[in-house]
Amino acid sequence: MKKIINNPNNVVTEMLQGIVKANPQLEYFSGVEVIAKRVKEKKVGLVSGGGSGHEPAHAGYVGKGMLDAAVAGNVFASPSPDRVLKGIQEANSGEGVLLIIKNYSGDIMNFDMAKELAEMEDIRVESVVVKDDVAVEDSTHSTGRRGIAGTVFVHKLAGAKATTGASLDEVKRVAEKAITNTRSMGMAMAPCILPGVGKAGFELGENQIEIGMGIHGEPGVQRTTVKTAVELAEILCEKILADYDFTGSEVGLMVNGLGATPLMELYILNNEIEKILMEKNIRVYRTFVGNYMTSLEMAGCSVTLLKLDDELKELLDAPCDTPAMKV
Amino acid sequence: MKKIINNPNNVVTEMLQGIVKANPQLEYFSGVEVIAKRVKEKKVGLVSGGGSGHEPAHAGYVGKGMLDAAVAGNVFASPSPDRVLKGIQEANSGEGVLLIIKNYSGDIMNFDMAKELAEMEDIRVESVVVKDDVAVEDSTHSTGRRGIAGTVFVHKLAGAKATTGASLDEVKRVAEKAITNTRSMGMAMAPCILPGVGKAGFELGENQIEIGMGIHGEPGVQRTTVKTAVELAEILCEKILADYDFTGSEVGLMVNGLGATPLMELYILNNEIEKILMEKNIRVYRTFVGNYMTSLEMAGCSVTLLKLDDELKELLDAPCDTPAMKV
Repeated sequence: MKKIINNPNNVVTEMLQGIVKANPQLEYFSGVEVIAKRVKEKKVGLVSGGGSGHEPAHAGYVGKGMLDAAVAGNVFASPSPDRVLKGIQEANSGEGVLLIIKNYSGDIMNFDMAKELAEMEDIRVESVVVKDDVAVEDSTHSTGRRGIAGTVFVHKLAGAKATTGASLDEVKRVAEKAITNTRSMGMAMAPCILPGVGKAGFELGENQIEIGMGIHGEPGVQRTTVKTAVELAEILCEKILADYDFTGSEVGLMVNGLGATPLMELYILNNEIEKILMEKNIRVYRTFVGNYMTSLEMAGCSVTLLKLDDELKELLDAPCDTPAMKV
Repeated sequence: MKKIINNPNNVVTEMLQGIVKANPQLEYFSGVEVIAKRVKEKKVGLVSGGGSGHEPAHAGYVGKGMLDAAVAGNVFASPSPDRVLKGIQEANSGEGVLLIIKNYSGDIMNFDMAKELAEMEDIRVESVVVKDDVAVEDSTHSTGRRGIAGTVFVHKLAGAKATTGASLDEVKRVAEKAITNTRSMGMAMAPCILPGVGKAGFELGENQIEIGMGIHGEPGVQRTTVKTAVELAEILCEKILADYDFTGSEVGLMVNGLGATPLMELYILNNEIEKILMEKNIRVYRTFVGNYMTSLEMAGCSVTLLKLDDELKELLDAPCDTPAMKV
C-alpha cells in the first residue's frame, strides 16, 4: 500500500490538522473531528459531513458562502451523533441550522440523532437528504439513491441563500429545490484502498470499468470494457437525461474526478459532455471540472447536472470563498 | 491503459477544447494550441507553457492576475516556436511580453526561437527560466535544475506585478526574484502512462518509491521503500533547506500532488511539513495544497518553498481569477 500517511488509524485527525494549517480561517475541534469557521456570522448555519475519504468534501467547503461546519467520520464511516452535535453547535448563531446529509443509512441515523440532541438544547434544526446518483435505486449503504457529487451544488446554493440572511425555512426550500433539480452518474476504472485495510475493496480487470459505481466502491449497474471519452459521455448522460428532463434548460455542470483521474481526462470528458448537452438543447450556464467529491485514490469520474432557474443561477454565481471552491 | 480519452493523438486538442468550454472567458486557438484571455488588457503580457500532461499547468493559470496566454505542446513535448509566437502575439498589448519558461532544453530552444520571431515583429520580449527542483543538478531533459511546481508561484507573482501596470523590466525583476527565492523537491510512488505509448515509462516495485523524480519521470536521486508522511516530509524538507537558507523567513508553501495522489494524503503531508518548518523558525505565510503541476496520473507529490518579503507577500495576496487558482 503506497500512501503518504503515518498510522492508518490517525489519517482523519492528521488530515484535518493539515487542512487548518493550510487554511487558518478554519478551526479544528479534535476528538469530534469538526472543522468550522473561526469567525461566526449571524445567519442560518449550514452543516454537512459524512465519512472521510471524499476530500475536499466536506471540510473543504467550509467558508464564506458555503458551509459553517463539516463533520468527519472515519474513512467511509458516518460520524457519530456527538460529532454532528458539535458541528451543529458551532454552526448555530441563533438562527437555526440546516443539515445537508448524503443519503446513506448510517449518515441519516447519526445526523437525525444529533438533530434530536440539538433540539434538546433548543437549537432549531432542519435537514435535507441528497440523493442525486441515478445509477441504482437502492444500494448496499442506502435506501433509495445515493448522495454523491451533486451534494456540492446543494452546499453552494443553500450556502449562498443563507448568506443573504434568509430564514431557515427559506434556506431549506432552496436546498430542496437544488436536490430536486440535481442528477449525477459515475464510473470507476480502478479501486481505492482503505488506509486501515491495505487492499482494494474490489477488483477490476486490466481492461474493465464499472458504470454507476458508488463513491465507497458500492456496486454499479454494469461492468464493461474500457470506453472512449465519447462513449463514456454518452453512457453517463443517457442515464441522467432519461431520469430527468433537462431539455431546454440551463444547467450547472460538474465533471468530477474520483481522486486518481488526471485533470486532462476530466477536461476531455467535459468536451464530450458539452457536445451532447448542446445537441439536446441543454445550455451549460456554469461548469466545474475537478476533484470535488472523491473516493480516496479511486480512478474514475462522475457527471452532475443541476437544472437552474433565475433564483438558482443567482445563488450559483454568488461569491464563495472556501478551500475547495471559490466563486 | 485505462484513460478517459478518444484517439491518443488528439488528447491535447480535446483537452484544450474542454477547458474553454468550462471557462468561456478563455479563447482557444486550435492548430497552435494556445489558450489566451478573451478580453485583453493593456499591460505587460505574460506567456508560459510547455509540454502537456501537467494540468492544470499551464492553461489553467490563464486569467486575471496570472498569465495572458499558455502554449501547449504535445504530452511531455515542447511546443514549437510558431505556437509560442502565437502565444506572444495574443499576450502582447504593446507593453512587451515576459516568457516564463521551465528549464528543459526543448522549451528553452523553442521559446528562444519564438522570442526572436516576435522581435522581428517589433514585439519586445524578455524571458525568465524557472529551475526550482533541487533534486538533481542536471537531468535527462535539462542543463541545470529542472523547473517544476515552483513555476506556479512565478506565474502568480509576476502576474500580480504585471496587473499593477508595471514595466516589462519591473515584471521581469519580480519574476527573477521569485525564481531566486523558490525551491522544490518531489517524489513519485507510481508512474504515469503516456496516452500514445500505452505503458509506463518506468516501473517501481510494490513497496518502492523514488525521491527526486522529475515531472516527466526523469530519474531522481534515490529509490527507497515506502516511507511514512513524517519521514517523507523530513526527506523533502531536508534537501530544500540544505540548498537555501529559509531560516527566520516567511514563506509561501505549496504541497503539490502529481495527479493520482488524493487530497487526504497531501493534507497529511502538509501537516508534517508545517511542523518541520515551525521547528526551523520558518513561518508559513500562505499555503497551497492541491494538484498544481502534475504528471498525468503519476502518484506522488512535491513540496515548494518560496521565501517572501513585503513586496512578494503583497503580490502573493493580490487577487487572481483563473481556472486553477483564485486568490
